[in-house]
Amino acid sequence: MRTIIISIGDELVLGQVVDTNAAWLSERLVELGIVPEYHQAVPDNLAAIAETIKLAAQKADFIIVTGGLGPTPDDLTRQAMAAVAGVKLVLHGPSLKKLETFFKERGRVMSENNRVQAMFPKGADVLDNPIGTAPGFRIVFEKATIVVMPGVPKEMKLMFERHIVPMLTTRNAWLKIKSRSKVMTFKLNVFGVGESLVAEKLGKLMRRDRNPLVGTTVSAGIVAVRIRGEFIGGKTGARDPALPAMRKTADKIKCLLGDAVFSENDVSLAEVVGKMLRSARKTVVTAESCTAGLLAAMLTETPGSSAYFLGGWVVYSNKMKTENLAVPADLIIKEGAVSEPVARKMAEGALERSSADYALALTGIAGPAGGSKEKPVGTVWIALAEKKGGGIKTYAERFLFPGDRVSVRERAAKSAMNILRLRLMPAKI
Amino acid sequence: MRTIIISIGDELVLGQVVDTNAAWLSERLVELGIVPEYHQAVPDNLAAIAETIKLAAQKADFIIVTGGLGPTPDDLTRQAMAAVAGVKLVLHGPSLKKLETFFKERGRVMSENNRVQAMFPKGADVLDNPIGTAPGFRIVFEKATIVVMPGVPKEMKLMFERHIVPMLTTRNAWLKIKSRSKVMTFKLNVFGVGESLVAEKLGKLMRRDRNPLVGTTVSAGIVAVRIRGEFIGGKTGARDPALPAMRKTADKIKCLLGDAVFSENDVSLAEVVGKMLRSARKTVVTAESCTAGLLAAMLTETPGSSAYFLGGWVVYSNKMKTENLAVPADLIIKEGAVSEPVARKMAEGALERSSADYALALTGIAGPAGGSKEKPVGTVWIALAEKKGGGIKTYAERFLFPGDRVSVRERAAKSAMNILRLRLMPAKI
Repeated sequence: MRTIIISIGDELVLGQVVDTNAAWLSERLVELGIVPEYHQAVPDNLAAIAETIKLAAQKADFIIVTGGLGPTPDDLTRQAMAAVAGVKLVLHGPSLKKLETFFKERGRVMSENNRVQAMFPKGADVLDNPIGTAPGFRIVFEKATIVVMPGVPKEMKLMFERHIVPMLTTRNAWLKIKSRSKVMTFKLNVFGVGESLVAEKLGKLMRRDRNPLVGTTVSAGIVAVRIRGEFIGGKTGARDPALPAMRKTADKIKCLLGDAVFSENDVSLAEVVGKMLRSARKTVVTAESCTAGLLAAMLTETPGSSAYFLGGWVVYSNKMKTENLAVPADLIIKEGAVSEPVARKMAEGALERSSADYALALTGIAGPAGGSKEKPVGTVWIALAEKKGGGIKTYAERFLFPGDRVSVRERAAKSAMNILRLRLMPAKI
Repeated sequence: MRTIIISIGDELVLGQVVDTNAAWLSERLVELGIVPEYHQAVPDNLAAIAETIKLAAQKADFIIVTGGLGPTPDDLTRQAMAAVAGVKLVLHGPSLKKLETFFKERGRVMSENNRVQAMFPKGADVLDNPIGTAPGFRIVFEKATIVVMPGVPKEMKLMFERHIVPMLTTRNAWLKIKSRSKVMTFKLNVFGVGESLVAEKLGKLMRRDRNPLVGTTVSAGIVAVRIRGEFIGGKTGARDPALPAMRKTADKIKCLLGDAVFSENDVSLAEVVGKMLRSARKTVVTAESCTAGLLAAMLTETPGSSAYFLGGWVVYSNKMKTENLAVPADLIIKEGAVSEPVARKMAEGALERSSADYALALTGIAGPAGGSKEKPVGTVWIALAEKKGGGIKTYAERFLFPGDRVSVRERAAKSAMNILRLRLMPAKI
């Protein structure tokens, strides 16, 4: 079923508000087996709305429209829909009554403006809005069925579940979904390997004619390998015949990328590391210079992180490095604050001053200033110290992160978590 | 100038990622006096991309396309653009060279896949990408000028400022911006007052028929009061006749909201606090429990923050509070870790252990677990200690933040910065 999502509102086209409705609707539609053709956001302009709807009706069987159903003069979606369908707006008695009750119950006076919210294009079916003043409606234009809902996310979501989902899924659905193809999506998260190298390793798996289809996107240093399967006539449920094909593709990818795959779907790096620490009954502390608390903040994003995260030091000034973590002042002078020995001393100092099993330390140049030829902006030393047989064993690694200050700091903190993750991985025989 | 914004990516149409690029581009375009016709998001499908571009070219003079320029086989924007223009993709020597250097400098091997990122539709002008591997390009198709940029927000934003803004604003701009109404926007940022109270205080200023128009949006605890003026035939530049009207409205708002207005346009709370500390030649340290480094990380987002931020302690466990900041263990037992005396002791302990002038401390319940009737989730104590006449003076305040773990932590860190901001404000006679 060809489906198009249209969002209406000046605030979207002016960039004052990000359109989250379209993404939410897409996600729900995909879960129901429908992949939208496109999203479009148009202003509160009668002609523009009408033109957009007409064009969409030529291309799709099903159109979801949100926004422009408010009571004010800039809300024009119902007028545009009436114009498209070539009908008048008519007053819907039950809706007017509900509207009046809505205001009465809240001790508010209904303004004359609100009356328009009980008006619908002639022939439309009204879709009740249980939590707001703007009901939606359904109308058929040419071969397309169009549903219109308010743009307030909370109201739209509730109405989608209550009215649209049953339309799409019940046996005697008003829309005959012909030999509907079912779409499933699945995501593997990869860290420490660039997007192009991932693609190279995956090779033929990324061919565009493959099913399941494999694609990659990158965000804040994490490469998401997305698997999308399209299955004609597939059934939903645990015994879904589509599942093995998806799983097989995921397994192939895991095999090709190895330890770089850290999680599936929406599980973060911090969650993975937390789970590993928890099951190993180990604890960690942090010693941060360039990231200045970002690593500690990331590690504690997960509820219950106090089970494995004890605390940390933000030693931004050299004096604090020396006074709080006993990094020798002359070492800093000799090697520089961004150096392997300083990173090691920071990690070891943190470990010694706590009861933790591991200490992660970072020192680097986040930029934009402070870089040199030997130590350009983006240079970060990360050290992992751990208690071992009465002593301390320390590992250190140098990184050169691309991007601006925000990127360098974020990648550095994630790389530190990744070092600990790799350390906590079970040994392979 | 009729302008259309097109975003490309399966992840957008599948609802896995919210399209923030289109909103950002719109906001910037509006600031430059251009109101886009519409936004459209299309999947990584050559035919769909080509069809969308062709249609847009019939309706617009200027088209901004983002996404689909990565190195992998699902990145098809450059191929689609070549198909639209009816030309081949050709290798661009200087871009290939830059690409090779990019990888070399980072000690990484360039994969064969990356070569495609140096290929462009024949006749296109290459737009350099200073921080990523995907350059953009500009191409003319029929009457429309099309610019294509990568979808990575950071790269796209930088390239927009560097390449697109000059195209649109220089005197001999390749695009003639014909006489039209000019839109200006301006933003005041407010902290510590809710959106509805802001609206109540602003009263008539928020009438929808007013010009400049005043609206509010809220994000992560910060209320943005947006002023949007529409001026027919206005000119750009410092002597712009539109400016006094905008400025007058802004002044009225500042007067009504007082100290709650902390900055204009895109200046963050951390930047404001940093500037105040710097000009007062004062320094700060942090002691964090529930925020676990988030405050320190926020304070150091601004380049050059080492001038006023020395470092901090993340004392997540009670043991670390006692061992590192000398918070008495029996005090924690008696009052609880989330209490006024513990917050005070944390701030004072941090101040005593550093050479800073101020110490900010936070202890609270970020949730989802750990709440009680007396101390529900969202309860946070914030203390500010400062050196005063040989001793220490400490201020403490209790907050109850709404929302989930992420919100509570973010609001807590911002509230701590706000307390310091208010402390640093010049006294009013």
